[in-house]
Amino acid sequence: MIRVVAKSVIKEGEVEAYKTLAAELIQETRKEQGCISYELFQDVQNKDIVAFIETWENQDALDRHIKTAHFEKIVPKMAFLKERQSEINVYRLML
Amino acid sequence: MIRVVAKSVIKEGEVEAYKTLAAELIQETRKEQGCISYELFQDVQNKDIVAFIETWENQDALDRHIKTAHFEKIVPKMAFLKERQSEINVYRLML
Repeated sequence: MIRVVAKSVIKEGEVEAYKTLAAELIQETRKEQGCISYELFQDVQNKDIVAFIETWENQDALDRHIKTAHFEKIVPKMAFLKERQSEINVYRLML
Repeated sequence: MIRVVAKSVIKEGEVEAYKTLAAELIQETRKEQGCISYELFQDVQNKDIVAFIETWENQDALDRHIKTAHFEKIVPKMAFLKERQSEINVYRLML
């Protein structure tokens, strides 16, 4: 099992536009083989900070995800709405 | 539901010591009322990066957690093993 946390800072006033794109990405991604969970969270203190928290069966499933048509179509559009590049960590369960 | 991601960079050579303390913290925390999940992850690329990913019923449960005897006893010991302060985000589910 692989857990991904992809944290982004969204440009001021762009959270709703980001959410619309994220909804489309989430809808398609949850259909993927090997996707256990794929959710978007918003920081309670700063509404411009969001994070995808994702659970994948294995690294192969994650590798396939970033080559899907929906990922390649939607993620670059989302990038325009971010203050800077996302902070992405891929984790394995330790305890 | 509240999701916490607490990411830390551990000093070189101290990951096993950190893991021992974390195991004790986890064992006690999972008994707390309002704790849905409380897990420790390790970055697959950099073994010195770890993250607690926590799910709490609500903010009250999280507020109680940081006042427990086990939190107050163990977390300061863990702090000595970190390169710098943890990066902590408290999130709500958006999508």
